[in-house]
Amino acid sequence: MLKNDQLDQWDRENFFHPSTHLAEFARGEAPQRIVTGGSGCHIEDRDGNRLLDAFAGLYCVNVGYGRPEIADAIAAQARELAYYHAYVGHGTEAAITLAKMVLDRAPDHMSKVYFGLSGSDANETNIKLVWYYNNIRGLPQKKKIISRWRGYHGSGLMTGSLTGLHLFHQKFDLPLAQVLHTEAPYYYRRADVNQTEEQFVAHCVAELEALIEREGADTIGAFIGEPALGTGGLVPPPAGYWAAIQEVLAKHDILLIADEVVTGFGRLGSMMGSDHYGLKPDIITIAKGLTSAYAPLSGSIVSDKVWKVLEQGTDENGPIGHGWTYSAHPIGAAAGVANLKLIDELNLVQNAGEVGAYFKKALTEAVGDHAHVGEVRGEGLLCAVEFVKDRDDRVFFDASEKVGARLAGELVKEGVISRAMPQGDILGFAPPFCMTREEADEVATKLGKVVKTVLG
Amino acid sequence: MLKNDQLDQWDRENFFHPSTHLAEFARGEAPQRIVTGGSGCHIEDRDGNRLLDAFAGLYCVNVGYGRPEIADAIAAQARELAYYHAYVGHGTEAAITLAKMVLDRAPDHMSKVYFGLSGSDANETNIKLVWYYNNIRGLPQKKKIISRWRGYHGSGLMTGSLTGLHLFHQKFDLPLAQVLHTEAPYYYRRADVNQTEEQFVAHCVAELEALIEREGADTIGAFIGEPALGTGGLVPPPAGYWAAIQEVLAKHDILLIADEVVTGFGRLGSMMGSDHYGLKPDIITIAKGLTSAYAPLSGSIVSDKVWKVLEQGTDENGPIGHGWTYSAHPIGAAAGVANLKLIDELNLVQNAGEVGAYFKKALTEAVGDHAHVGEVRGEGLLCAVEFVKDRDDRVFFDASEKVGARLAGELVKEGVISRAMPQGDILGFAPPFCMTREEADEVATKLGKVVKTVLG
Repeated sequence: MLKNDQLDQWDRENFFHPSTHLAEFARGEAPQRIVTGGSGCHIEDRDGNRLLDAFAGLYCVNVGYGRPEIADAIAAQARELAYYHAYVGHGTEAAITLAKMVLDRAPDHMSKVYFGLSGSDANETNIKLVWYYNNIRGLPQKKKIISRWRGYHGSGLMTGSLTGLHLFHQKFDLPLAQVLHTEAPYYYRRADVNQTEEQFVAHCVAELEALIEREGADTIGAFIGEPALGTGGLVPPPAGYWAAIQEVLAKHDILLIADEVVTGFGRLGSMMGSDHYGLKPDIITIAKGLTSAYAPLSGSIVSDKVWKVLEQGTDENGPIGHGWTYSAHPIGAAAGVANLKLIDELNLVQNAGEVGAYFKKALTEAVGDHAHVGEVRGEGLLCAVEFVKDRDDRVFFDASEKVGARLAGELVKEGVISRAMPQGDILGFAPPFCMTREEADEVATKLGKVVKTVLG
Repeated sequence: MLKNDQLDQWDRENFFHPSTHLAEFARGEAPQRIVTGGSGCHIEDRDGNRLLDAFAGLYCVNVGYGRPEIADAIAAQARELAYYHAYVGHGTEAAITLAKMVLDRAPDHMSKVYFGLSGSDANETNIKLVWYYNNIRGLPQKKKIISRWRGYHGSGLMTGSLTGLHLFHQKFDLPLAQVLHTEAPYYYRRADVNQTEEQFVAHCVAELEALIEREGADTIGAFIGEPALGTGGLVPPPAGYWAAIQEVLAKHDILLIADEVVTGFGRLGSMMGSDHYGLKPDIITIAKGLTSAYAPLSGSIVSDKVWKVLEQGTDENGPIGHGWTYSAHPIGAAAGVANLKLIDELNLVQNAGEVGAYFKKALTEAVGDHAHVGEVRGEGLLCAVEFVKDRDDRVFFDASEKVGARLAGELVKEGVISRAMPQGDILGFAPPFCMTREEADEVATKLGKVVKTVLG
């Protein structure tokens, strides 16, 4: 580890960081943190700080940092065979084994898994598959994709279009024309505060029906949604939402893509978010939890129904013209196999559910009654606290006050990493599944202190 | 390693292979190969075959298989810190060091590098940057991208659109409307066989000028091209091509994206293809050679000119809304650092140039005079043999004869992996840079034998 200024300088001079204020960083005005190691729920940086990472990286280090089981699997694979491609029927033991393990954990009606690198590229694959599917079925007009405002599905051109957050659209000419957005399933932010949860679901359904009516069902190929909203606010769906939405989709022959990048492999306290909320998707997107981020790997799990049409497509047209050089990369696959085994062995899905419930309770006790706390919500280890200017009249802070960012900044000073979600004053918590009750208490207590400091 | 049928069956039942005939594979009609290890230019499979991989995976294992230096670096990083993100100014020693090493190897006018996972996602990033760039400059109409027929730039929705090969368009509704294609710089396949190379370059320039005229220069943001065509045929550019093209682009304020996924870090016998052919790109795409595929990692190197506008953009609009969870993944970065060091230490760029020239000569001697060989071409370790029905009148085989695929299939039986390129009867050779003259001779000799067997 370079302890001198050289590394700092190299960083500012050469490294284009994602989701960063590029000018401030290059000028040395924005902070830099060089991370050097981690263990369990904690990371360490070069300056000797040890932080409790209550967001698990970018809600991806699900098994926690420093797991030798996964590091050893990666090391063994790197020595045995770091790479071979998976094109035209080639494969490796790790990739094939992981495909089997993924299907064992997916809903019964799922058939095959395509492996990519990131959640973004998996959703890119999914849209290509939807288009191909309806071309093979002789429905060339049925191509538009419906996403929800506040959904997060990536930051590519198509996937950033699917994402329903302004930060990812502005100055990039997004969304693309093929993407439509409908109501976010975010009860706390309903336009009509007098609606019951049931009425709000009916409203979401009516909005979707109206959109489909307006565009024509014969032009709409798929609907994509996260079982529980992620980056858009960490919001569990209102009761009855998915059953009602799926009824509409089935009626109009619209495929359902469940984006389980955040929820897949245990975050909600169930193996898959689809099982947790009763979704029966045609395609499932997986990424983060698949390897706990120890190596890049994503996947598109396709159902029997979709797969049959893909087979027909290649019988009619020959090999499918889709692939990444690093599809099913052996290092990622080895990490995935070790990760899924570890999740089972340590009962981490169960722990996510149990400690998640405890954590939500602790957060509620710590700040739930505060005058500027609008809502404490969560499911499993996906929790959020939403801050408001006026709790009774549900008046939000002006974005320019940067309340969320200030709270996250103060919390880091206390040694706890949370995430200020990008749209609204929402502090997100999505710690590793190995979080203990003591760590949950620590986060809640420190949050209580920080809220008092910043908001009185 | 599972030696029984279970792995075979798991593969057919669960694994969605890229670029594969899905139906034939699932039904067990298409072959499967489970790769278990490799060393230098050779791979081994589960059935005991040892093959000379003259295509280096998918022209990516540039340093060769089984390098302990890279495996050790991956193992060390996995144990020290497998993952932390690079958002909002976070980083790791490996990623920062690699950024510095990449810039040291890139043309002088390049400024920063953004790290992604695959060549496809890097080109996706590049198009987003072009659009952002022209929005910040107040030129919101200047967004279309010109690519070349037979260019290869990925297989996503945008990147598959940039790719100028029919296999990647059909049944996927590509190319998207924002992408235009112009003449492939492929002298051997010129429409007018009477053209000299110089006349053909003038024709390419005229075609580009006419396209720009037709669309309006104020609607065109960038031109993307590989220094030497890759998957479209492995074709070095005609003499004078890049100088003439760059003059047109400069005149019309059109950015140049050099896709160096294949050519970057030594394949042509120069560190970068841009240096090799005198390109001065505004953005450079890198991937395969960056890590020799030991771990997934790609990059977008941006020039001073582009970076300045990006800085202005974040000063005006705040943090840039672009990032992948696995951007600058530490495992990929550690592999990249070790890989670039190894390339230097073993003088592999020089070897690629020297053995490449020897290899091309050997191929020419082995098959150059054959009645069905239209051209033997190459630069460094990027070589191809193009087969034709009639050499004198340059009549191509009908695609249904699958001459290229049959030749590649026979060559594998002789223990040598080549690649039948997807459009035309073109056998591609892009071996690891450590290929010896003996191995070059072996490939050439076996190719000679196979050509005789298949084509007489």
